[in-house]
Amino acid sequence: MPIACASRLEVVAVPRVPILNAGDDLPAIVVRAIAEAGPELALRDADVIVVASKAVSRAEGRFVDLSTVEPSPAARELAGRTAQDPRVVELALRESSGVSRAAPDVLVVRHRLGFVCANAGIDQSNARPSDASPSSGPWVLLLPDAPDRSAEGLRRALTQATGAAVGVVVSDSFGRPFRLGSVGVAVGVAGLPALWDKRGEADLFDRRLEHTVTALADQVAAAADLVAGQGAEGRAVTLVRGLTFEPGGQTAAELLRPLGKDVYA
Amino acid sequence: MPIACASRLEVVAVPRVPILNAGDDLPAIVVRAIAEAGPELALRDADVIVVASKAVSRAEGRFVDLSTVEPSPAARELAGRTAQDPRVVELALRESSGVSRAAPDVLVVRHRLGFVCANAGIDQSNARPSDASPSSGPWVLLLPDAPDRSAEGLRRALTQATGAAVGVVVSDSFGRPFRLGSVGVAVGVAGLPALWDKRGEADLFDRRLEHTVTALADQVAAAADLVAGQGAEGRAVTLVRGLTFEPGGQTAAELLRPLGKDVYA
Repeated sequence: MPIACASRLEVVAVPRVPILNAGDDLPAIVVRAIAEAGPELALRDADVIVVASKAVSRAEGRFVDLSTVEPSPAARELAGRTAQDPRVVELALRESSGVSRAAPDVLVVRHRLGFVCANAGIDQSNARPSDASPSSGPWVLLLPDAPDRSAEGLRRALTQATGAAVGVVVSDSFGRPFRLGSVGVAVGVAGLPALWDKRGEADLFDRRLEHTVTALADQVAAAADLVAGQGAEGRAVTLVRGLTFEPGGQTAAELLRPLGKDVYA
Repeated sequence: MPIACASRLEVVAVPRVPILNAGDDLPAIVVRAIAEAGPELALRDADVIVVASKAVSRAEGRFVDLSTVEPSPAARELAGRTAQDPRVVELALRESSGVSRAAPDVLVVRHRLGFVCANAGIDQSNARPSDASPSSGPWVLLLPDAPDRSAEGLRRALTQATGAAVGVVVSDSFGRPFRLGSVGVAVGVAGLPALWDKRGEADLFDRRLEHTVTALADQVAAAADLVAGQGAEGRAVTLVRGLTFEPGGQTAAELLRPLGKDVYA
């Protein structure tokens, strides 16, 4: 079986996923939303469920009220260089193992989970707890504590509820060097290959393919982002159907270029 | 109308697209393949047709027989540092306005079209002309001469043949800093917004969204890459259906971060 060669893919927003709040049981909520969506969304083997990291973070209660954050001298100095809110910079530093680039309006860090991204993935939109008092905030959301683990928890719950060997991607939307606009990326992966290595396959002229490792989970996240958006639609969960892959044990960590091999670190 | 908010997307490989060769009329071939695919693939407004840049390059005859390439001293010196074929390095330099990074096994350049990518996007798989003599080669393929123009030509042909206001993306597969694996990106765009600017929209809590510009055309290319692959399937053309967007005049150039604003240049 080819690992991931589809001739037709469907990308469908799972309807009626509520806005999540701290303490919500995300797997149970996703299982229920899919069950209530009717037979068309009944899960099959090799379906992939993509969940926006924001929903995972909300369920985990990763909210921070900026008015409670005291920036360190280092954060203040850095915020001066980036012209950002020193409290956001303070949180970004706490979340990170190092700064990749700092410039006006730009703070790119290496998140403690290994992702290189702006502001440690701290999210300033839809970041307010539903029960927050009107005088609190502004609020921000940190990335999930352990998105690979969250993905695996959801995968297990979905497989248990439906019997289908599904994959799960926890997605976020990152900016990039060289190119404008954000794209969906996988920050958590369970049950599907994060990377799809085609190097063993022959090309059309029987030459072995070189340098052909596809970031499968990132492309799944990008496809889902076309449907889920990050905005007012409240679409946190997306079904991607049509891939074929061997159920696997890879994680989003597999997608990270080792620091020593990154010429842009 | 929201610009690009879909709740359901279909990504379908267009069947029976032949391997293209120099001089082939790509728009006519794509129009015919879609017509022969039957009513389900009959084009509608806001359908997007994604064509692999390799197919465009083949139709344009962008083949180069490496045995005919004489590396310059600069290419030889650089190839020594990157441990690559000096003839490929020579072509990469000819295709580029500058070198971004050179290291063992790594040559990232700024292509004359503005893309920052490995080896100027030179392709060493499926890169042989069908009528090449057995003793020739090895062959490589350069990126299309003007992929935005190729996209626009195909868009015009498809709209003329079907009456549908479609978008066209010419896609390639690029590596990335920080993350392993390649992802589909748009190197040519016509008829759809390359970037989707959501900054004017309100988030779920009526806070204006910040920093929310999505690389729509890149994500369409990534979704198509899940179906098209780059390998033995010979799937050069993909239909992405379900987006909504205002027909627009953007190009892939809109996706390029200006050199002076790129902290990773």
